[in-house]
Amino acid sequence: MSKRILVLNGPNLNLLGQREPQTYGHETLADIEALCRRTATPLGIAVDFRQSNHEGELVTWIQEARLGTHGIVINPAAYSHTSVAIHDALRAVALPVIEVHLSNVHARESFRHHSYVSSVAMGVICGLGSAGYRLAIEAFAEKLA
Amino acid sequence: MSKRILVLNGPNLNLLGQREPQTYGHETLADIEALCRRTATPLGIAVDFRQSNHEGELVTWIQEARLGTHGIVINPAAYSHTSVAIHDALRAVALPVIEVHLSNVHARESFRHHSYVSSVAMGVICGLGSAGYRLAIEAFAEKLA
Amino acid sequence: MSKRILVLNGPNLNLLGQREPQTYGHETLADIEALCRRTATPLGIAVDFRQSNHEGELVTWIQEARLGTHGIVINPAAYSHTSVAIHDALRAVALPVIEVHLSNVHARESFRHHSYVSSVAMGVICGLGSAGYRLAIEAFAEKLA
Amino acid sequence: MSKRILVLNGPNLNLLGQREPQTYGHETLADIEALCRRTATPLGIAVDFRQSNHEGELVTWIQEARLGTHGIVINPAAYSHTSVAIHDALRAVALPVIEVHLSNVHARESFRHHSYVSSVAMGVICGLGSAGYRLAIEAFAEKLA
Amino acid sequence: MSKRILVLNGPNLNLLGQREPQTYGHETLADIEALCRRTATPLGIAVDFRQSNHEGELVTWIQEARLGTHGIVINPAAYSHTSVAIHDALRAVALPVIEVHLSNVHARESFRHHSYVSSVAMGVICGLGSAGYRLAIEAFAEKLA
Amino acid sequence: MSKRILVLNGPNLNLLGQREPQTYGHETLADIEALCRRTATPLGIAVDFRQSNHEGELVTWIQEARLGTHGIVINPAAYSHTSVAIHDALRAVALPVIEVHLSNVHARESFRHHSYVSSVAMGVICGLGSAGYRLAIEAFAEKLA
Amino acid sequence: MSKRILVLNGPNLNLLGQREPQTYGHETLADIEALCRRTATPLGIAVDFRQSNHEGELVTWIQEARLGTHGIVINPAAYSHTSVAIHDALRAVALPVIEVHLSNVHARESFRHHSYVSSVAMGVICGLGSAGYRLAIEAFAEKLA
Amino acid sequence: MSKRILVLNGPNLNLLGQREPQTYGHETLADIEALCRRTATPLGIAVDFRQSNHEGELVTWIQEARLGTHGIVINPAAYSHTSVAIHDALRAVALPVIEVHLSNVHARESFRHHSYVSSVAMGVICGLGSAGYRLAIEAFAEKLA
Amino acid sequence: MSKRILVLNGPNLNLLGQREPQTYGHETLADIEALCRRTATPLGIAVDFRQSNHEGELVTWIQEARLGTHGIVINPAAYSHTSVAIHDALRAVALPVIEVHLSNVHARESFRHHSYVSSVAMGVICGLGSAGYRLAIEAFAEKLA
Amino acid sequence: MSKRILVLNGPNLNLLGQREPQTYGHETLADIEALCRRTATPLGIAVDFRQSNHEGELVTWIQEARLGTHGIVINPAAYSHTSVAIHDALRAVALPVIEVHLSNVHARESFRHHSYVSSVAMGVICGLGSAGYRLAIEAFAEKLA
Amino acid sequence: MSKRILVLNGPNLNLLGQREPQTYGHETLADIEALCRRTATPLGIAVDFRQSNHEGELVTWIQEARLGTHGIVINPAAYSHTSVAIHDALRAVALPVIEVHLSNVHARESFRHHSYVSSVAMGVICGLGSAGYRLAIEAFAEKLA
Amino acid sequence: MSKRILVLNGPNLNLLGQREPQTYGHETLADIEALCRRTATPLGIAVDFRQSNHEGELVTWIQEARLGTHGIVINPAAYSHTSVAIHDALRAVALPVIEVHLSNVHARESFRHHSYVSSVAMGVICGLGSAGYRLAIEAFAEKLA
Repeated sequence: MSKRILVLNGPNLNLLGQREPQTYGHETLADIEALCRRTATPLGIAVDFRQSNHEGELVTWIQEARLGTHGIVINPAAYSHTSVAIHDALRAVALPVIEVHLSNVHARESFRHHSYVSSVAMGVICGLGSAGYRLAIEAFAEKLA
Repeated sequence: MSKRILVLNGPNLNLLGQREPQTYGHETLADIEALCRRTATPLGIAVDFRQSNHEGELVTWIQEARLGTHGIVINPAAYSHTSVAIHDALRAVALPVIEVHLSNVHARESFRHHSYVSSVAMGVICGLGSAGYRLAIEAFAEKLA
Repeated sequence: MSKRILVLNGPNLNLLGQREPQTYGHETLADIEALCRRTATPLGIAVDFRQSNHEGELVTWIQEARLGTHGIVINPAAYSHTSVAIHDALRAVALPVIEVHLSNVHARESFRHHSYVSSVAMGVICGLGSAGYRLAIEAFAEKLA
Repeated sequence: MSKRILVLNGPNLNLLGQREPQTYGHETLADIEALCRRTATPLGIAVDFRQSNHEGELVTWIQEARLGTHGIVINPAAYSHTSVAIHDALRAVALPVIEVHLSNVHARESFRHHSYVSSVAMGVICGLGSAGYRLAIEAFAEKLA
Repeated sequence: MSKRILVLNGPNLNLLGQREPQTYGHETLADIEALCRRTATPLGIAVDFRQSNHEGELVTWIQEARLGTHGIVINPAAYSHTSVAIHDALRAVALPVIEVHLSNVHARESFRHHSYVSSVAMGVICGLGSAGYRLAIEAFAEKLA
Repeated sequence: MSKRILVLNGPNLNLLGQREPQTYGHETLADIEALCRRTATPLGIAVDFRQSNHEGELVTWIQEARLGTHGIVINPAAYSHTSVAIHDALRAVALPVIEVHLSNVHARESFRHHSYVSSVAMGVICGLGSAGYRLAIEAFAEKLA
Repeated sequence: MSKRILVLNGPNLNLLGQREPQTYGHETLADIEALCRRTATPLGIAVDFRQSNHEGELVTWIQEARLGTHGIVINPAAYSHTSVAIHDALRAVALPVIEVHLSNVHARESFRHHSYVSSVAMGVICGLGSAGYRLAIEAFAEKLA
Repeated sequence: MSKRILVLNGPNLNLLGQREPQTYGHETLADIEALCRRTATPLGIAVDFRQSNHEGELVTWIQEARLGTHGIVINPAAYSHTSVAIHDALRAVALPVIEVHLSNVHARESFRHHSYVSSVAMGVICGLGSAGYRLAIEAFAEKLA
Repeated sequence: MSKRILVLNGPNLNLLGQREPQTYGHETLADIEALCRRTATPLGIAVDFRQSNHEGELVTWIQEARLGTHGIVINPAAYSHTSVAIHDALRAVALPVIEVHLSNVHARESFRHHSYVSSVAMGVICGLGSAGYRLAIEAFAEKLA
Repeated sequence: MSKRILVLNGPNLNLLGQREPQTYGHETLADIEALCRRTATPLGIAVDFRQSNHEGELVTWIQEARLGTHGIVINPAAYSHTSVAIHDALRAVALPVIEVHLSNVHARESFRHHSYVSSVAMGVICGLGSAGYRLAIEAFAEKLA
Repeated sequence: MSKRILVLNGPNLNLLGQREPQTYGHETLADIEALCRRTATPLGIAVDFRQSNHEGELVTWIQEARLGTHGIVINPAAYSHTSVAIHDALRAVALPVIEVHLSNVHARESFRHHSYVSSVAMGVICGLGSAGYRLAIEAFAEKLA
Repeated sequence: MSKRILVLNGPNLNLLGQREPQTYGHETLADIEALCRRTATPLGIAVDFRQSNHEGELVTWIQEARLGTHGIVINPAAYSHTSVAIHDALRAVALPVIEVHLSNVHARESFRHHSYVSSVAMGVICGLGSAGYRLAIEAFAEKLA
């Protein structure tokens, strides 16, 4: 495979499937990882799929992507709304970024309407559930082709 | 074809390709319509593709979609930020809606950060250029299947 | 009949009865028009009852009321909250205006709490359903008598 | 008479007719009470008409209305804008409420644009002078019928 | 004596002398009443000096001043910042009003910086302790002369 | 008994048990008074338990507590959010104060998020129902011991 | 004539002369059109003078000016304050724009202090009545020379 | 012991006793842990007492509490005011939560007045020092009984 | 004379008597100076009366008052609302300050409601016309005695 | 010449031509003065052209214009946004005022969007470079004729 | 000496050593001037050290620095927070600027947290007392070398 | 060496030299560490130089500095703007703190204008690149001497 995408998942996404299914659906994060790989492999893209509850660890992983990675799909979850550090890391690595949210954050509490990640992302997909990940990878495939 | 999607385009999108290409790209609206049809037809979906500079006309077209249409893809352009009337129309017809923006509105002027449409949409895709339309139709295809 | 009242209805009110009945009730706009006429005729008042989804058309109709009309009952719907143009038109024609809302806008989203029309209206009635129209006409009858 | 409505009047309304007639008109509160009775009696509705300058007394009267009263017409006057206690009392008794203001509060100082009562009222009538009371009673008559 | 001034004192002023002397000084309200009479009598002014913890009672006293009183000196204390009812009462009686505060409210918490009374007062004196009352009476004497 | 605590209850708390049980529970204010006495008596604390719908009466009761009372437990209810007068009274008497709310005010409307009482209280307990009163008395017992 | 200027007039300007003469003067829109032509003709400039109450129509006319027009004089009236669509259209056509207001909008209601048009205009003239149009055309003449 | 409570302590609480004793008192975190155990053991409750300076670690510990824990007492310290991630974790595990603060946060800097935890907590206790932990455990004991 | 007071007048006060008499009255600044001397001399106070349109000159004069002056009466006029430099100068000289305004600034435009001087003044008198100067001098006389 | 106009220039305008030519153009202030005279002389208007970096000096010059001057053209530059003193001076002299800005302040930093001068000006011209001065003088000529 | 630095001091700094020593220390401005010269001379830098209480004079001095000066150290004091004119002057001369504050403005009143100078400065040093001047000169020396 | 300074670096500073050189320069963090040691050693100061992407780790390191460290130089990077925890840690250890930023944060996005660290720092240096670290160490040397 000639292309590599980092798929980053923020805090509490490891609980997917157990956590508030009326908001986040029944899929687990493993299901989403499988979906990402199912999508990426035929497109010749390798997926590096990770989750962390630590803002600092997400920052470090973004930094490490500078070499050998061609794009980042990130669902920053709660850190979308509070992390200037992730904003800075994404800006520093200067890779194309697509931000994904499972739920439609604009239809939820007002503190979820602003994301520090959006202004450094190429695009944002929200509210489409796990399909958002798939669509983000397909968008990268088209762009990286 | 058993499914029908209304693809609505707001003010100034008829200028696509001529208007600020550094922000909106070189594709024309006709190119996007062709892309939508190319995407939808193999998925068994008929596309009703329209553009208007009139808020009232967009409202009326949304209302007419109540019967015989299964979903709406809408790029409300400038009316995203100012139209409660489109918000109300979308809420009234109670169809699934995906909002699409060609550019990443979150990286532009602050008056483009809020959309009255987002809170009544199922999902939002922005910043991915015309691919946003394609991804929206694919998302509907999956959902309507 | 010696008096004439213009009853104006804003965007999406043509959907009444089909649209969110838990908020707006089951009556159609035709029912409300009939109610207005039933109320006005015995009071010697002619009713000119209209609806438009276009802000510009509402502006024009208000302008045309300068001659031969004695008062305006207006349910501006979504344009209440966004239209300076309707505010200006109402101020320009200098007729008495009663603003009517079917639902209690003060108990809904915060963006519905401000109306550009209220500051140029003589009075406002909201939350009383179609009875609001009847009460407005009766109030005019008393005033115009 | 089988129905009973409490008509509550807030601070300074006892001065009506003497106080700023250019804003509030020349009618006294006794005139309004008479109007309310004239309106209600033929409709089979008994009116309990009261005025107080004390927020606490208004709260207590609202509480007492829980038993034997079918609706509340309230002109909270200055307490509209400052009283969470009246808001809570109205919510606690769970009766239908119509809020009335003699003047059009939306065309006056900005601190009169928000009312804590509106969000717990069924409807609001303002700017129609004493006719607002009459219309509110008629609206209740229709509803209670 | 040919002139009569109402001197009104708001909530907690009955505690003067006991309450936070570093902010309000050691004088009691009786001391201030004596000072007011000592000041007013030689000027031919009768003083009606009152204190209440009840907003409603203050409103009523202001209303009663319409007849036979020539001016109001009011230290509204905490109600300065929260009472639209006192604002309305003062506006309704249309007498000259001087607002007095013992402490300099502008050098205290920000919620004490706005007074609903100031906009309906002729003048405001604050931060001069009990001398503020004396100066207010002298100002009235000069004006009423 | 050597210690005395004033337990003050603000507007509408006399309705407890009848009012919105989904928010405030089924206990009556008499039940809470009994709970307070049951808690306080074994701890050698006398309880003076009162309720008023009048801001001014609450202010007066707080003032009277200066002598012979060792602490105040106050549930200011609606006046939490609007009463500078109660704030001033509590600050003036300089007794330890614990503020109690039956419901979790922070999970309700935004106008309930700020309390003028909190900044002059020693501590605040909210959302624990009537147990909040018991815990407040126990906290005082420990402190006063 | 070698140069062509589009002079656009927004909602309610068709009422000029009848509408609030104390604010807008006695001239009609036909008078202003004549003034524009009187000014432009000797300068070798053709004037395309239009008025619409429809935001969408103004957008369309701006778009059409891309070809064969050298500058736009626009009095957006009420749409100044609410139309992102006109802002976008003006930005898209990339012609020089001078915004004109008959009255001094900065001395009127605060909602008239912001104009979405100003940030895409070359210059703004307000408060000089119909002379503003003349001065704008002269400014263009100088610039286009 | 049949019940288990997780007692979580946020950043800098490990410094208790050394850090700003005028604000936080002289007790150490070990003292508080001992107090919690002294309180809980007789009530048949096991206490899992932890502290971390890492937001991510607190998130993980909350997640792990889903199984085998019956309630969470959390003093989020500085993260109260900045952590949407802890808010999300607490909401995800759907256990009863009591938020505790040693100091009265409402009497400190304004940035400490809002807590993201409060809106997902059952109740909040602040300003009562280490007694707040004891009271929280007793409240759980009563609730879990 | 044993005491000396600096009476400072800010910008445009030299126009008094000519400027907007409906707001500022017919007295000239010379009249006010005479009034100040008439008031001060019998009280054994020397008055240093000055006016400047320059913020910097006012700052310098305040600084010079450190030696040999016992108090400052200042009507900062427009600089009340914009000058941190005057605030700093007054704080630096650490003399008692009384701020005077001829008109009631709280009843005028909102930008006149905040004064940088008030927070460093002992007291503020506004709305009493030139009598405010006299009262300020009398208040100083009493204080300095 | 029978008419006289004062043309006032605020801080830093003496640097014109040297200062940020991409924003302010290459003309010097002397060029603008010459343009003003070239424009005014044939219209029978004398121009008094001045520049100052001192707010106080501008205030004084405005005051002096009360006698013998028929209008003021003012480019207040930076003081537009901060000077209440200039606002007051212009209001005091009660002459017609036209405010001119070389650049389009509405397209620059947000702190340049508000001008204290605009609300006391007859009209405002911005963004038209030195032509703005010429147009202002022509507008005065027309008005003064 | 081949390099020249202008060291500018704003209002009230001439009082240093006398003014609020707990905030500003005991050094006089002459001490700071001596420190600047002691620092600059060995580095081959000539220092032009000035202070003014006049905003306009500071503007003029900045303008004059365009020729023959290589950098500006400015302690704008109170004018930091209110002077757009100094901002504009600094931007116009296009020299490197270091802003110095003796005290830590971020730990003082909120109106001192914003400086119009900072956005046009190369760097800012605050809270380090007179050492800030020395460090600024050393930084220039390094930069100019 | 008798003195010890902790130099702390926040998230993404490990990327220095690679990350946005136009904003942050070409030096690496190792270069800055060397600069710090080169500066500190001759001054008899030992430097403990650290970097972390983890807010919690920075908190812990600050806590550990309580013993044996005499001052903290901290470049909190992104955590400046979001971390109350670092604010609390710095306040708890009660050591002198100098905050350093490589770039001039006041000339960047508005979310970088507020730092939670500044209010607990002795001083702040920003915009001087790596020289800021050197100047901070020199300032400490002077202070600790």
